Amino acid sequence: MTTMRAVQVVGYHENLRMTELPVPEPTGPFDVIVRIGGAGVCRTDLHILEGQWAEKSQVTLPYTIGHENAGWVQAVGSAVTNVEEGDKVIVRPLSTCGLVLACRSGDDVHCENNQFPGIDTNGGYAEYLKTSARSVVRIDDSLEPKDVAALADAGITAYHAVRKAIPQLYPGTTCVVIGAGGLGHIGIQCLAALTATNIIVVDRHPDALKLAEKLGAHDTVISDGGQVDAVQQLTNGGADVVLDFVAEEGAENEGFAMTRPNGSYFVIGYGGTLEVPTLDIISTERNIIGNIVGTYNDLAELMVLAQNGKVTLHTNTFPLDAAVEALEELDAGRVRGRAILVP
Amino acid sequence: MTTMRAVQVVGYHENLRMTELPVPEPTGPFDVIVRIGGAGVCRTDLHILEGQWAEKSQVTLPYTIGHENAGWVQAVGSAVTNVEEGDKVIVRPLSTCGLVLACRSGDDVHCENNQFPGIDTNGGYAEYLKTSARSVVRIDDSLEPKDVAALADAGITAYHAVRKAIPQLYPGTTCVVIGAGGLGHIGIQCLAALTATNIIVVDRHPDALKLAEKLGAHDTVISDGGQVDAVQQLTNGGADVVLDFVAEEGAENEGFAMTRPNGSYFVIGYGGTLEVPTLDIISTERNIIGNIVGTYNDLAELMVLAQNGKVTLHTNTFPLDAAVEALEELDAGRVRGRAILVP
Amino acid sequence: MTTMRAVQVVGYHENLRMTELPVPEPTGPFDVIVRIGGAGVCRTDLHILEGQWAEKSQVTLPYTIGHENAGWVQAVGSAVTNVEEGDKVIVRPLSTCGLVLACRSGDDVHCENNQFPGIDTNGGYAEYLKTSARSVVRIDDSLEPKDVAALADAGITAYHAVRKAIPQLYPGTTCVVIGAGGLGHIGIQCLAALTATNIIVVDRHPDALKLAEKLGAHDTVISDGGQVDAVQQLTNGGADVVLDFVAEEGAENEGFAMTRPNGSYFVIGYGGTLEVPTLDIISTERNIIGNIVGTYNDLAELMVLAQNGKVTLHTNTFPLDAAVEALEELDAGRVRGRAILVP
Amino acid sequence: MTTMRAVQVVGYHENLRMTELPVPEPTGPFDVIVRIGGAGVCRTDLHILEGQWAEKSQVTLPYTIGHENAGWVQAVGSAVTNVEEGDKVIVRPLSTCGLVLACRSGDDVHCENNQFPGIDTNGGYAEYLKTSARSVVRIDDSLEPKDVAALADAGITAYHAVRKAIPQLYPGTTCVVIGAGGLGHIGIQCLAALTATNIIVVDRHPDALKLAEKLGAHDTVISDGGQVDAVQQLTNGGADVVLDFVAEEGAENEGFAMTRPNGSYFVIGYGGTLEVPTLDIISTERNIIGNIVGTYNDLAELMVLAQNGKVTLHTNTFPLDAAVEALEELDAGRVRGRAILVP
Repeated sequence: MTTMRAVQVVGYHENLRMTELPVPEPTGPFDVIVRIGGAGVCRTDLHILEGQWAEKSQVTLPYTIGHENAGWVQAVGSAVTNVEEGDKVIVRPLSTCGLVLACRSGDDVHCENNQFPGIDTNGGYAEYLKTSARSVVRIDDSLEPKDVAALADAGITAYHAVRKAIPQLYPGTTCVVIGAGGLGHIGIQCLAALTATNIIVVDRHPDALKLAEKLGAHDTVISDGGQVDAVQQLTNGGADVVLDFVAEEGAENEGFAMTRPNGSYFVIGYGGTLEVPTLDIISTERNIIGNIVGTYNDLAELMVLAQNGKVTLHTNTFPLDAAVEALEELDAGRVRGRAILVP
Repeated sequence: MTTMRAVQVVGYHENLRMTELPVPEPTGPFDVIVRIGGAGVCRTDLHILEGQWAEKSQVTLPYTIGHENAGWVQAVGSAVTNVEEGDKVIVRPLSTCGLVLACRSGDDVHCENNQFPGIDTNGGYAEYLKTSARSVVRIDDSLEPKDVAALADAGITAYHAVRKAIPQLYPGTTCVVIGAGGLGHIGIQCLAALTATNIIVVDRHPDALKLAEKLGAHDTVISDGGQVDAVQQLTNGGADVVLDFVAEEGAENEGFAMTRPNGSYFVIGYGGTLEVPTLDIISTERNIIGNIVGTYNDLAELMVLAQNGKVTLHTNTFPLDAAVEALEELDAGRVRGRAILVP
Repeated sequence: MTTMRAVQVVGYHENLRMTELPVPEPTGPFDVIVRIGGAGVCRTDLHILEGQWAEKSQVTLPYTIGHENAGWVQAVGSAVTNVEEGDKVIVRPLSTCGLVLACRSGDDVHCENNQFPGIDTNGGYAEYLKTSARSVVRIDDSLEPKDVAALADAGITAYHAVRKAIPQLYPGTTCVVIGAGGLGHIGIQCLAALTATNIIVVDRHPDALKLAEKLGAHDTVISDGGQVDAVQQLTNGGADVVLDFVAEEGAENEGFAMTRPNGSYFVIGYGGTLEVPTLDIISTERNIIGNIVGTYNDLAELMVLAQNGKVTLHTNTFPLDAAVEALEELDAGRVRGRAILVP
Repeated sequence: MTTMRAVQVVGYHENLRMTELPVPEPTGPFDVIVRIGGAGVCRTDLHILEGQWAEKSQVTLPYTIGHENAGWVQAVGSAVTNVEEGDKVIVRPLSTCGLVLACRSGDDVHCENNQFPGIDTNGGYAEYLKTSARSVVRIDDSLEPKDVAALADAGITAYHAVRKAIPQLYPGTTCVVIGAGGLGHIGIQCLAALTATNIIVVDRHPDALKLAEKLGAHDTVISDGGQVDAVQQLTNGGADVVLDFVAEEGAENEGFAMTRPNGSYFVIGYGGTLEVPTLDIISTERNIIGNIVGTYNDLAELMVLAQNGKVTLHTNTFPLDAAVEALEELDAGRVRGRAILVP
């Protein structure tokens, strides 16, 4: 086979377009070609089509979209030693160089030489994806690419934040999760797997709160205007940690207000503007912690949780040909769980 | 002697008043009476007289002002085992219970049962002060109370922030200090004593920058509007840590803007309002860290630095009778270093 | 009531003797009198009677034995603010001063001014115990003193070691537990509650391994001579952490041999002698970590786990009058779970 | 130039032999060829010739010896992005793959796929050395390869241990350094640069103690049999940290005996056998910490200290042709500081 189907961005505010492209081949020593088994459909994909990322990514159109990918190794470059043809893998969305101090310090999130397939280079709405040996995590035989693909981005981000918070979440503490959606419901599972903290989930949707309870929430709070007071009461003065998967439309200031003295507000979602007097920060010595996609090792650890059944995802599969339809369904709020394209 | 001189707040927007009071005696088992050797005159004392703390402290007038104290133990309660009559001591401004989880966890900053002499109870502009066994740190014979008194509050706060930042300040990193005044010039000395980070000091006053260089600053930046750009250039994209001893009048947003990806902005001063889009927090994964007075152990460690000559203070002594004059001098900006009242 | 029953050590290699003693009263400001609800019978009590602790404890005979205690607050000293009459409490075995740097740093295990009731002063085989406000942890209404008493010493020690190991026990790692007896079976439950590590339990007794599986062990290894090889195979080259609750009769050198490069061997049991070439320590950069009873906060956190049903104990109750018989049963290996004296 | 001079091991218990070899060229994508500016002569080189490493390294003779190297980049492989021809570099002795979890976690010391030039593959007693992009650290213009070469191994090892100890070395603590020789005298400088701990140096040689004082030691103890008691007295019960650069001939057990409760004994040297009852480990909760060569980032950080004049080395240069003589001088104890071969 020398050509493949790929779904591309051909213009902003236009529909994606299915096209035929050459199957990518390894050209660099660390290149890895992955045959896609599943590609997650993410809200960011909608934002890309709206042009919100055009300036930041500087990507040249057309290009193939899709940043949540898993599948099988199809071919490898000359210097690849960690995977081989046929290996089942999930693809970390961030590609890194491995040579700068950040990569070497265990913090490859901050590699200065990174690429983000599906955003600034060709992604995984396709039959094959070119990535790097530094980005592929082998997964256990018991896991299927289409079942875990959405952990590649949504999962790694939630896991990263939870893992950073662990030292503050010993028994007797409380952690508030704002937003039990795509990332949040993974965050709840990670908290339950990795800590014995008391988990309180805040969301606008009663359905999301019901799901949260099944996944490990000890208390839930409906977000109807009284959520800050409700959390303050439940926690007797504020939570030790607040994980805010929303961080817009006011959640950002409420999230900070839900912390107790010496507590930390973890920002994971975005869109809003935090506005806080420095007196409020110092008088109670509270912290605001930024979070972005996790490290390669975060993804490897998350796969262990997935393999042990401690983190699971609800997914709906669509054939690759139905990419446009899948995005429309997402936009219309009709997708339950995560939509996954299967070539 | 049964009475002593004490300088009291008798009304807001009124002068302090010298009065005669009974010498305090130990009544509780952990009480410690300190004969004052020096009491620091702090800008907070001006704010107290302006009534800024009235509501927060709920203090009943008249009361004795002064929260930066050192001297000699005069008498102790029945259960005191850590100091005895005649010991030379510095007084931690925060009095704590020792029984709550915070006190027991090494974080006695967050004791729920605290008092703050000079703010919410009688302080040290006097010949004697009643404090607690939990608040007195014995100091070395080589140190004089009047020379170290100002380390009790200004010093402990600067030390606390620096100590928290140490893990981020390995060789090759850069730390920006905003404000080389009372706290800042101690912070610079602590950085130089405890790390090998590159120290950049930002201040409005050329004199302060000159002092900063003597105390260990590797670079200085005048705060004339171009300071964010200057720091970005000197650091090739931002500092690993920014210690902001000002945090008002715009410094708070500039301070955050001076950090690099994965960097941390430590808020120590106060007065301004931080306003930052959550996107800016997450996209580069930066942190905002609150800081307040240090722990008892912070003060004990700072005394080791003082004893070894690694942290020194410039002071001007005034007799206790000249308390009003000392405050006027401070208000008028005519005090170089720290003003210290000596009974 | 002015007298009470108490079981005392009257001579080494002699039986304990029941006697009548005055009920203790608070004399110091931080004294707390606890009405005993349950006192754990520990193997250390046997060692005390054999005289093994005589020199180390320097205790004067006769005195009341028993260091695993829980009950209700009967009376408090003048400065006690954290508990009041009627509170249900568990008693941390170590009494501390709260004033030295260790106590203030969150490490009250290393207080230089400590007492250990039941070992160097009167303990809890009695109707009432005098302890300190610094040693009592309030427990939830849902817990009964006799059910949790044994967590006071066996539990806190196991919890302390597990909590220290958490940062090394992220998903994908393996932790070996040597010895699934009194402490070990609590350790397994703590590991399962606080981490997602893979738990391998090593013990001589098939019954203990069966219990271990119920409590959260993922693999078990019978200790029949091939245990080091078995662990090396199961772990593909050694465990990240080994928690050794035995540390005698050869377990100590086997435990070290079960670690992988960069791994840590936690010593909790004792009796043996570790003998290891420094080349083996440095060539693979492995660590040997000492552990002793936990901090007050460790006990408070463990009580949260108990309250949430994450740590449970098997106990057999005996009336206080049957103390001698309970010890005989323990010595004869006929006690399943922990023997608890109930006055 | 197509051939070069290289000094090779041709047989154990035989002299090194100078030979002509082809200049190495980059063949793999990450290969880097370094023109040697200085190669340190290390005691390990003597041990290699005595055959002590033969079995462990499995190296095939003849091969080029020399593991402490610095120089200039001569040529790079196709995928190298972090250095370019002409860059001045120091060579980390351990070559790593960058792909395994250890490399990605910031702990590339424990890469399973490593090489050690000079020990298991061709080293730097030569005009050119083939290494990897993952092993070269660019150094500042102000540093000369021959002046820093010995930091590549001796330096990185000492730095690594000191950096790990920093959290335990706050003001008021004490650190004992056993052995102020090649590694130890760098360790003392690192301690002085990175902490405010009290430094006590123990050595057999009065000259070494004199040097130690110049480099930052606050106290020195001659190792004449009374060293444990002397340290116990100076430290009032033991040091918080002991860095043992000897760890043989009894130092290993003395080092552990010099720690205080909750203290840590860092093993860096080797040769002896540690023998310690588990009771002594647990009763005072002390730790034994293994240490080996540092990470790539450790070397990068150490270069910052060198560039700032905080770590300096005494060296004697020999022409490459005098390699045999340099080793003889070292063996005879006639080298002061480090012998460096310069091609």
